[in-house]
Amino acid sequence: MSRKPGKKDSPAPPKPRLRILFGEAIALGPGKAELLEHIAETGSISAAAKRMGMSYRRAWLLVDTMNQCFRAPLVETATGGKGGGGARITGTGHEVLSRYRQMERIAAAAVADEMAALTALLADAPPDDPH
Amino acid sequence: MSRKPGKKDSPAPPKPRLRILFGEAIALGPGKAELLEHIAETGSISAAAKRMGMSYRRAWLLVDTMNQCFRAPLVETATGGKGGGGARITGTGHEVLSRYRQMERIAAAAVADEMAALTALLADAPPDDPH
Repeated sequence: MSRKPGKKDSPAPPKPRLRILFGEAIALGPGKAELLEHIAETGSISAAAKRMGMSYRRAWLLVDTMNQCFRAPLVETATGGKGGGGARITGTGHEVLSRYRQMERIAAAAVADEMAALTALLADAPPDDPH
Repeated sequence: MSRKPGKKDSPAPPKPRLRILFGEAIALGPGKAELLEHIAETGSISAAAKRMGMSYRRAWLLVDTMNQCFRAPLVETATGGKGGGGARITGTGHEVLSRYRQMERIAAAAVADEMAALTALLADAPPDDPH
């Protein structure tokens, strides 16, 4: 229940976040999009996981879900198996990521007025232990 | 890994879903909005939880988070304590819910073209055991 230092002074502005729900699966959302970007930058699922403070297993499961949600895989892993041979974003992966970021920008701009009205109703600071 | 009956025949179309992130908290998202609507209809957190197949404790924690995220509570509970005296949506609650539903409509319309392009890249059916 302790408040993080500095949090009171500069509360983060609220953000609208977008998720693409496909059946029970989140085909893409903020976490998966960030994971794709880190894989693109590092060429490795384990390095991307480390950057996000996420276990390799969790990152691998998220990649697996994304790959299953789309017609073609978004991430390809080189032979060498788990943790081994590196990973790269495919053409479909780059297209999906780019379209998602574009959707985020379009959605955020479109809801800006409603978001401002809702922000005015928010408390001064977010709760410390949210559900 | 077994596929649910009928799932193959009528795959649900993908949907963009909106969450309002406030610090670490989800101030409002699809689940919390639905919970608010069920509370409005039933006048009870426990009845709303039951409708959603959610424990009373979980519903109560979600309500508590929403109430903490906003300047005024969205849900008021009558005396009688946990599970006791019923619950109602406040004026702020109705306004927040209405604005959220409006934001959903605006965002979905704004991203429709990008969403169609992304949908074309999706697999025929979502994965059965997603992460």
